[in-house]
Amino acid sequence: MTAENTPEPVNYTVVGAGAWGTALAVMLSRMGRDVALIARSEKKAQSLQSLRENKEVLPSIRFPESLQTHSLERDSGWRDSVQQAPHAVIILATPTQATRQAVRNLQQQLHKGHDLVITAKGLERETQKRLTDVVREEASEPNLAVLSGPSFAHDVAHGLPTAVTLAAPTLDAADRLCTLIQGQHFRPYASDDLTGVQLGGALKNVLAIAAGVVEGKGLGESAKAALITRGFAELSRLAISQGARSETLAGLSGLGDLVLTCSTAGSRNFRFGYELGKGKKTAHLLASGQPLAEGAKTAAAALALGKANGIDMPITETVAQVVEHDMSIDDAIDALMTRPLTRE
Amino acid sequence: MTAENTPEPVNYTVVGAGAWGTALAVMLSRMGRDVALIARSEKKAQSLQSLRENKEVLPSIRFPESLQTHSLERDSGWRDSVQQAPHAVIILATPTQATRQAVRNLQQQLHKGHDLVITAKGLERETQKRLTDVVREEASEPNLAVLSGPSFAHDVAHGLPTAVTLAAPTLDAADRLCTLIQGQHFRPYASDDLTGVQLGGALKNVLAIAAGVVEGKGLGESAKAALITRGFAELSRLAISQGARSETLAGLSGLGDLVLTCSTAGSRNFRFGYELGKGKKTAHLLASGQPLAEGAKTAAAALALGKANGIDMPITETVAQVVEHDMSIDDAIDALMTRPLTRE
Repeated sequence: MTAENTPEPVNYTVVGAGAWGTALAVMLSRMGRDVALIARSEKKAQSLQSLRENKEVLPSIRFPESLQTHSLERDSGWRDSVQQAPHAVIILATPTQATRQAVRNLQQQLHKGHDLVITAKGLERETQKRLTDVVREEASEPNLAVLSGPSFAHDVAHGLPTAVTLAAPTLDAADRLCTLIQGQHFRPYASDDLTGVQLGGALKNVLAIAAGVVEGKGLGESAKAALITRGFAELSRLAISQGARSETLAGLSGLGDLVLTCSTAGSRNFRFGYELGKGKKTAHLLASGQPLAEGAKTAAAALALGKANGIDMPITETVAQVVEHDMSIDDAIDALMTRPLTRE
Repeated sequence: MTAENTPEPVNYTVVGAGAWGTALAVMLSRMGRDVALIARSEKKAQSLQSLRENKEVLPSIRFPESLQTHSLERDSGWRDSVQQAPHAVIILATPTQATRQAVRNLQQQLHKGHDLVITAKGLERETQKRLTDVVREEASEPNLAVLSGPSFAHDVAHGLPTAVTLAAPTLDAADRLCTLIQGQHFRPYASDDLTGVQLGGALKNVLAIAAGVVEGKGLGESAKAALITRGFAELSRLAISQGARSETLAGLSGLGDLVLTCSTAGSRNFRFGYELGKGKKTAHLLASGQPLAEGAKTAAAALALGKANGIDMPITETVAQVVEHDMSIDDAIDALMTRPLTRE
């Protein structure tokens, strides 16, 4: 598992200069790799290049010298570098709903033999599709992989120990990519359960909104733990119906990420739910420039998927009602708490 | 599920006036039931009776009028009341290692037909036995049940929504007790997996110490989430080898309680680990009057049980080394982080 496996220099490109893309780019370049971080706008790319940090999302994390920034807007030569590289690892750190468009934008760069790693956690809203399916529709050539698991950008950027799951169609492919993407304190574990890793990541964001509501409403830690547990059962039912393995769901990318996302205000989805619990409405939160909560857009897609498969998803349904139809929080809590008492 | 099922008045006795016993006694008496809360010492019982609150552990929670306090030291007549009751529910809220002695003390009161509900979460240190086995050795007559799950005394005492598992040898017996023990916002879910419920509760306390260490040492939320996930896999391996069902472990009394205990400083075990992570030694913590951390005593028993069954338990082993043999925290983290990288 050393450089012997990868004799040729690998081109690393991280598309998306949000907190997570920036943290991954910094982590990879700290290992001495040449990394290009691609922002959406040229203005952002130039600001990153001159400040040598991403002030808004990861203040005081200095960019290593081997990290260069470019943009999707301007062809500064980075596209040629990817295209001509014998081997490129392209990490897609764009939001879920922007993924299809990003892949279209990169089509010329996505060669056979290149690795394309998806990091967004959600389902495409209109189609209820997983992102591997979305990407395959737009670009069939590159090897696909999914990176997911309990990992705050802040922790990775600060070099704190982090363990994640890296799934690819085969374990051998996943092992190979783990070697390419690991950092000093960043450990990817290989998996070949693309379905389980993606659904765990997508659905935990919906549950994080519910956990945030419980906290915002002041219902206590015991209630939140019960909600996480019942939510995990719900997540598992849906994911297993789609072919996920239960061990994957109980692993880092499922349970681990669920625990992290529901635990602290460091998660956008949790914060979004927290504000709802405090009485704010979705429209108000979106208008006030709150950052995107992936789970808010995935809730309806997950619910539709559950209905199509005959899976009862009371928590997801309640989140969808609150987010999309302004159900009041008191009604939401009543809906969840007054369900008939059952055996566990 | 109403009083029709229980035509005769039920005698409720909670033995142990710590935070949890007090919270349960208050919750039950708020439902209008006659409840006796039994402290260890007569001095404590009298202080509770005159203050009408348990100032040290649950300040400003007023005792309802129907709650009476007595002690194990003095026979104020409460023993006769239990003995002569057609039906008594006796809730044992004593620490794990004190459970055998408590049952011996209550032997005269533990009739056939009475319900004895165990609430401690641990393994007897010397014998590695589960508490149902310990209790059966001392009192074979009463019906046994185990109450466990994510529930802070503080939350229950404040009437916040709480969901727990109540396990008995049969689902019918568990259903019957759920009706007797439920509160307005306190919902027990029935189970017949006594093994799973007890092992989940015992082992999560060990893992909570490890999670506290990670937090005390400042390793970040991502590392803590990874530890909880790997710890849950470890807990599940051992419990399943003893006959527990995986659904029980993924339920309220396993995963739910693990999440709660590892999340907040409200847990003694977590706080104990946190202080260890800050560099304190076990002897120092015990001497300074820190309250008992059940997990500190269960770690060695769990490890021995694992060894006897060929189960690899790296996190439990590390906790046992830190707690019992003063392994340094840096060495403990090295031991956990430098294990060979595996597939998930």
